[in-house]
Amino acid sequence: MNDTFLKACMGEKTGYTPVWIMRQAGRFLPEYRKIRAKVDFLTLCKTPELAAEVTMQPVDILGVDAAILFSDILIPIEKMGLKLKFYEKKGPKFSNPIRTQKDADKLKIINPDEDIPYVLETIRILRKGLNVPLIGFSGAPFTAATYMIEGGSSKNFLKTKRIIYNDPQLFTSLMEKITQTTIAYLTAKIKAGAQAVQLFDSWAGALSPNDYEAAAFPYAKKVIEALKPLGVPIIYFVNDCAGILSIAARAGSDVIGVDWRVDMAEAVKKVPITLTVQGNLDPCVLFSTKTHIKEMALDIIKKAKAARAHIFNLGHGVLPETPPENVKTLVEFVHEAGDI
Amino acid sequence: MNDTFLKACMGEKTGYTPVWIMRQAGRFLPEYRKIRAKVDFLTLCKTPELAAEVTMQPVDILGVDAAILFSDILIPIEKMGLKLKFYEKKGPKFSNPIRTQKDADKLKIINPDEDIPYVLETIRILRKGLNVPLIGFSGAPFTAATYMIEGGSSKNFLKTKRIIYNDPQLFTSLMEKITQTTIAYLTAKIKAGAQAVQLFDSWAGALSPNDYEAAAFPYAKKVIEALKPLGVPIIYFVNDCAGILSIAARAGSDVIGVDWRVDMAEAVKKVPITLTVQGNLDPCVLFSTKTHIKEMALDIIKKAKAARAHIFNLGHGVLPETPPENVKTLVEFVHEAGDI
Repeated sequence: MNDTFLKACMGEKTGYTPVWIMRQAGRFLPEYRKIRAKVDFLTLCKTPELAAEVTMQPVDILGVDAAILFSDILIPIEKMGLKLKFYEKKGPKFSNPIRTQKDADKLKIINPDEDIPYVLETIRILRKGLNVPLIGFSGAPFTAATYMIEGGSSKNFLKTKRIIYNDPQLFTSLMEKITQTTIAYLTAKIKAGAQAVQLFDSWAGALSPNDYEAAAFPYAKKVIEALKPLGVPIIYFVNDCAGILSIAARAGSDVIGVDWRVDMAEAVKKVPITLTVQGNLDPCVLFSTKTHIKEMALDIIKKAKAARAHIFNLGHGVLPETPPENVKTLVEFVHEAGDI
Repeated sequence: MNDTFLKACMGEKTGYTPVWIMRQAGRFLPEYRKIRAKVDFLTLCKTPELAAEVTMQPVDILGVDAAILFSDILIPIEKMGLKLKFYEKKGPKFSNPIRTQKDADKLKIINPDEDIPYVLETIRILRKGLNVPLIGFSGAPFTAATYMIEGGSSKNFLKTKRIIYNDPQLFTSLMEKITQTTIAYLTAKIKAGAQAVQLFDSWAGALSPNDYEAAAFPYAKKVIEALKPLGVPIIYFVNDCAGILSIAARAGSDVIGVDWRVDMAEAVKKVPITLTVQGNLDPCVLFSTKTHIKEMALDIIKKAKAARAHIFNLGHGVLPETPPENVKTLVEFVHEAGDI
């Protein structure tokens, strides 16, 4: 069992820098596309054997130091009572978004054993076959709320912000339900065998620091605090985090994941030495030459030396068009470059 | 003549905080929509009497301390040789984007007198009627390049970044032509009567700090240096700037404009005391209650006290659905709150 990733999560010394790639089980791999050609996205998420297979693919193909459960952050949201559809081009859409207190009151807090047995089954299958740690994940409460309120992705999150500003009671009750669901969801994943969890706050970066501190941070913190006693490392990834990183780093996670828009040296300065940093290569750099990929990776590795520990990753999910051989080159290079 | 805005640009003391609003001449005003109902967007940009009329509207209606020429950052790009169309829903599109050296070689550096006489004529008309300073503007070179390469707006700017990484010769030659055009364009605007200029680097924030410093910053700096001898204040607005602000602040501008994702107190710390700061209320706050709008504006005003001077603005353009009365409330409040 390769436990480099888990050691780095907890700030222990490792012989090399562990690396995994956000969305590593995904469309950029021909092996994934082959399976995906036979089933639609949601069916793939909900079929344990298939979900386990695509989860394992990048471990074998890329040599990454952790696996992340193949799933989608919208799965638990659907189970709270939203009607979810995935469109090839427009992405995910909910046909009954949350706009009123009545909408929020109808939502339920999920019961993982009943609502997402296939997710827990996938984890159990994976734990038998994997030789690297398995990461479970969830959207952070604010990010989940944006999908529920906007009904899909959004350019400026105006509907969400209007509710934050003008209907604090609705916003708070919605966030409490999402927070409870997220805690139940990740607790079940950990109990089923997930050895670390990552909270994705993909849209928290759209908030001003004031709004982030009031409307997103407290709920992420609450989830993290509830999971702490379970004893697995918790990663908090905040996208577009440069302006809110010093707040986000106080949420209590063991690891803070940062996007590529902040220099790693500056990120490390904003994060207490009690945290491991994760990131932060621009996913677009993987479309560059191998020399340039190595140069940029090395720059990050060197800057992250000032942190307690470093888990190498991209600053966001790997893009579908990415050449797999470049991802392999990156993983190999990070492993070799460990002791600079 | 109200010269509060110009004084603040140069760091002189003013009795109150001057304020203008990005996209203040635009769709959120019913008076604008009335004119726009009769002509399409590009015709409005290219008809001096109408462009002048909509430029003046917010000065009268909102009481702002500066006017910004009604135009679009794509106008000079079109004149470099790209075919531009505006679509009501999809936004602007170029049908012949720049992808090869041959495409770039065909581009010309604009001659403002010949290519955009209507812009210069609009400025001359405005200078006769306005009682506040007139701001001219342009996209910053990198932002202009993204439109030319992507063919419109983009989610991850992959096409642009691929050229930066893999075809530096093409990227450099394209950027040089855009830079020369931007200099010619803004020089002509200033000579026609613009009393300040703003460079919009709307997409620079999509770059990692390394890439920003190499691929965007030098060209913005070059434009600013070329305009300096003309003696009007230069504002450099960088969107999503939290991670690159300390670099952007070295471009030589008199004023640095910041978006809402960075706390004003932190922004001021990253900017040398030789610069005025501009910004940075989240445009979505204008959908809140008047009390909350004032509270958030006051927070910014207080934090900006540590800067050389402050020009109040939103952190991005005012949204089309914004209630005009809330914008009026904001402008009045900023004027009253000047001496805290």
